[in-house]
Amino acid sequence: MTDQLSNPGRRRAMMTGGSLVALTGWSGLAGADGVRVDPAAKKTASGAKALPDYAQWKDADAMIVHSANTIEQKRSAFGASTITPSDRLYVRNNLNPPDASIVQDPDAWMLEVQGVGQPRSLSLAELKTLGLQSVTMVLQCSGNGRAWFPHGPSGTQWTVGAAGCVVFTGVPVKAVVQALGGVADGMVYMTGTGGEIIPEGLDPKTVMIERSVPLEALDNAILAWELNGEALPLAHGGPLRMVVPGYMGVNNVKYVKQLAFTKDQSPAKIQQTSYRFSPVGVKGTPEFPSLWEMPVNSWITHPFEPGQSAKAGRVQISGVALGGTHEVKQTEVSVDGGKTWLQASYIGPDMGPFAWRTFTLGVDLKPGKYQLVSRTTNAAGKVQPEHREENERGYNNNSWLDHGFELEVV
Amino acid sequence: MTDQLSNPGRRRAMMTGGSLVALTGWSGLAGADGVRVDPAAKKTASGAKALPDYAQWKDADAMIVHSANTIEQKRSAFGASTITPSDRLYVRNNLNPPDASIVQDPDAWMLEVQGVGQPRSLSLAELKTLGLQSVTMVLQCSGNGRAWFPHGPSGTQWTVGAAGCVVFTGVPVKAVVQALGGVADGMVYMTGTGGEIIPEGLDPKTVMIERSVPLEALDNAILAWELNGEALPLAHGGPLRMVVPGYMGVNNVKYVKQLAFTKDQSPAKIQQTSYRFSPVGVKGTPEFPSLWEMPVNSWITHPFEPGQSAKAGRVQISGVALGGTHEVKQTEVSVDGGKTWLQASYIGPDMGPFAWRTFTLGVDLKPGKYQLVSRTTNAAGKVQPEHREENERGYNNNSWLDHGFELEVV
Repeated sequence: MTDQLSNPGRRRAMMTGGSLVALTGWSGLAGADGVRVDPAAKKTASGAKALPDYAQWKDADAMIVHSANTIEQKRSAFGASTITPSDRLYVRNNLNPPDASIVQDPDAWMLEVQGVGQPRSLSLAELKTLGLQSVTMVLQCSGNGRAWFPHGPSGTQWTVGAAGCVVFTGVPVKAVVQALGGVADGMVYMTGTGGEIIPEGLDPKTVMIERSVPLEALDNAILAWELNGEALPLAHGGPLRMVVPGYMGVNNVKYVKQLAFTKDQSPAKIQQTSYRFSPVGVKGTPEFPSLWEMPVNSWITHPFEPGQSAKAGRVQISGVALGGTHEVKQTEVSVDGGKTWLQASYIGPDMGPFAWRTFTLGVDLKPGKYQLVSRTTNAAGKVQPEHREENERGYNNNSWLDHGFELEVV
Repeated sequence: MTDQLSNPGRRRAMMTGGSLVALTGWSGLAGADGVRVDPAAKKTASGAKALPDYAQWKDADAMIVHSANTIEQKRSAFGASTITPSDRLYVRNNLNPPDASIVQDPDAWMLEVQGVGQPRSLSLAELKTLGLQSVTMVLQCSGNGRAWFPHGPSGTQWTVGAAGCVVFTGVPVKAVVQALGGVADGMVYMTGTGGEIIPEGLDPKTVMIERSVPLEALDNAILAWELNGEALPLAHGGPLRMVVPGYMGVNNVKYVKQLAFTKDQSPAKIQQTSYRFSPVGVKGTPEFPSLWEMPVNSWITHPFEPGQSAKAGRVQISGVALGGTHEVKQTEVSVDGGKTWLQASYIGPDMGPFAWRTFTLGVDLKPGKYQLVSRTTNAAGKVQPEHREENERGYNNNSWLDHGFELEVV
């Protein structure tokens, strides 16, 4: 049997040029008139942090290491191929990951299932006998785009790179529930508990990773052991992760050790008061909406970046568009900050309602100043708004204005 | 700008268990009654070769190195997530790759276009302004499955691993042709020429990589600079590759330096006499069919492998199914060598007509001997045959019997 842990020195030196875009140079970032500054870019310019041990296999050139548990993909490192390579996928952990030994024998991992007809523990080996499903989906941190909130919410200052589109494969939660006699009567939530080690001396409820989502999320949820065709790495929740397509990253519980159908939401702090959409100045409490479904969003990734200047001529502007829990319907691009819009085309196969799509639009740019923005509408008719909805912790930023940037063409 | 060449030491130590299946042990490979032996597995058992420099970034544990220019993915390393990770994608070069310096500045790569209204050279930077398209497609060597031809054709003894399903992104050839005044009158073929260095003292025609495909292939062809969301690596034809969805691997010319619309097929040996479907004992000549479109095919990848035994109980049998130039319509699985068939389900989103799909079927296996096979039908009604069509060089093996294997359940 192959065991990648036994070969930690496997090298990955991609013989490529590394970047897909023709850059003509960088304009000054600071103080340039109206130039939207990418805070993350400034941060790396001042000295990049090293990848943590558990994520050493990431493409360091493609990532911004905010901290050992918050690693963002650079905007310039997004591809146009729909799928985000695993080694460029962002990482966000609310607690340190468990020891890497848990992925040495994935099939031995145990999951406790509660709130069903016949509650019991199942090994991952047994879960693999119950069904197989894969889903191509956007994985995104609720705080993606936080860097643009003017009140300076605490938390990682993500711009666009706390998101990726990946293929998760595992067993449908439905199949597991069916094998265990169905959901028990009266249950309203599906609750996953992570396998992180709770630091000694702390009240578990204040730090444990336990998230509840509405029972309806059961329809698309899977218990995943594979990411993009390889065994799920520790950095992304291996050996087993609860995957809830269309829901914000935090609901996709890593190293899931318990799946419970419950009458109430988890009592954990991360459910009760964290990840709540509360007004600026107001702390999160259960009365405010939980960060569940993702909103419609989009951003330009090529061939320009914030802070850049370019040569006049023909260009293909492209980016990614996601519809949340519905497929995308249309994406428009504006080069004049939203005064006029042109409809972009989607490229490549539609990988399902939870995937994002790459959009593209060919335009001729003469010398001058441009404000590049994109705006997406999903199949449910939700349109990406011009302005973010302000909130205390800087969640759910899908403002098309924030995601855009100025470009000087010479 | 990111330059991955400047960081050759980037490590990739995936913190995973490495394998997705629960194996219960290996039965003896040699001499077991009726057990189908995987020749590639025998070869690696006798001592694995090292990955060549240009492919050092591959996942060594997932690959079988036949030679520096023929590297196969292990059957056990296939995932169920449709997309083959780049670091597990097979490699087959007919000539040594050019120097890695060609991918250091991809945008400077030049492509000569002939047989159009206004023939000229274009840089990759210019190609990027003309359009953007991506395609999810099977890339497969014509000789995949050669190991099962009983007459022992020369060439690499591939079993199933000279194939993968990947996302290529680039400019539609149609858009390039349109920008250059359309295809010139009377042209019948689309001909790509590779940028390999021709060894001194040899007649270029005998070694050059130049392949012609029918003009109709233009409809789906792209000039690709991205593979699975990253700049196209040298090992897979970077900085620029001609990609012809639905056509055998050899037609997807790497490091493409010339694209020509021609009245005749290329005079190169690789077109005229190699890659021809000739009877056993007869050398290839232009009168025999060229290896162009891929036939319908499928094979089981999980949870068993050839030569394996297993414990009785419930299992999910899964594998990959490809339709060639048409989408797959149905895949059946038999555990009794084709006496009775059960219809498998496809999982995950359909990624288009040129992609493969993962199929799955849950069965209960009692102790005994089984012959596991799969059979796919595509949307054009083509059914995978029981027996391979014999031919001199061992091409196009899509026999469901050959791709199957015996399993002992205890």
